[in-house]
Amino acid sequence: MSDDQQSPNESPAAAPLEVRLNQLLGEGGGPSVAAAESCTGGNVAHRITSISGSSVYFLGSIVSYANSAKMALLGVSEEILETRGAVSEECARAMAEGARRAFGADVAVSTTGIAGPGGATERKPVGLVYLASAGPSGIVTRECYFDGNRAAVIDAATEAALEMLVAEVESAISLTKSVS
Amino acid sequence: MSDDQQSPNESPAAAPLEVRLNQLLGEGGGPSVAAAESCTGGNVAHRITSISGSSVYFLGSIVSYANSAKMALLGVSEEILETRGAVSEECARAMAEGARRAFGADVAVSTTGIAGPGGATERKPVGLVYLASAGPSGIVTRECYFDGNRAAVIDAATEAALEMLVAEVESAISLTKSVS
Repeated sequence: MSDDQQSPNESPAAAPLEVRLNQLLGEGGGPSVAAAESCTGGNVAHRITSISGSSVYFLGSIVSYANSAKMALLGVSEEILETRGAVSEECARAMAEGARRAFGADVAVSTTGIAGPGGATERKPVGLVYLASAGPSGIVTRECYFDGNRAAVIDAATEAALEMLVAEVESAISLTKSVS
Repeated sequence: MSDDQQSPNESPAAAPLEVRLNQLLGEGGGPSVAAAESCTGGNVAHRITSISGSSVYFLGSIVSYANSAKMALLGVSEEILETRGAVSEECARAMAEGARRAFGADVAVSTTGIAGPGGATERKPVGLVYLASAGPSGIVTRECYFDGNRAAVIDAATEAALEMLVAEVESAISLTKSVS
């Protein structure tokens, strides 16, 4: 999926996802939100915090560029990094769970991938990105292949992560309503 | 200082600061770099990681938007937050030291301020930002007042943080050379 592609149920004039997040959570009382970013390098947090009032629901992001940071700050296991690699579904999942735990957040999203132009291997091309969202209803993971240069891959991965985050927040809000 | 102002010893055609950082550190062997961001919300990390090869020296950033994250992940004391506030020189200093410790980095930079339009108090206006850089030669702090809307304050604070980071890296490199 590319950055400018619309999902079928999204109107062409839809608000940016960070605005949508604010519409869902800005009045308070909803789930708290955090992130763990590798290939997006802080851009998910940057977009969320570009909206005034985001401090009501956004706790923060751990930009874990080095594997040592993925282990120390997010609890990603050495086994995952050695057997699956930092760019893997398992690592994305562990990062999202780790962010949820580190921040004490209700919902968290994670990104890990190869933004390029360097870093590709035979089995992992530039543009390969794994995303995960974790919340009270469980964990969702996604494997994506994005086209374009480094900036385009970072932008597309950020957009896809925000999509997953909004979906996870909507799911968490539904869950709360059905329980109460 | 505003975003588009040049410092006296900077040529008008100077490379962006994230490029300068890569020129200093991209070949490896130099000091490792980390960040702790509040008001810049991940934009310092985003700019650093927009450069291919930044993983050689950039370990990551803790975007600590909530005070709970400043305490849990960066070791900022409750006393500082209660007596000085999150937007204070003391908090910026503790965040930079905390980032250096959390990532095991040689050099770290931090940002905390009021990006606006909300959040101002009588003594702390929108645009007030505290920055700190920490490295082997000590800690530098800076108090800034930036003009403009939320995006302008975030951009100006990011630029100023990158300036301090580049200066701290240059200082750390000089120190290594004078010792060896």
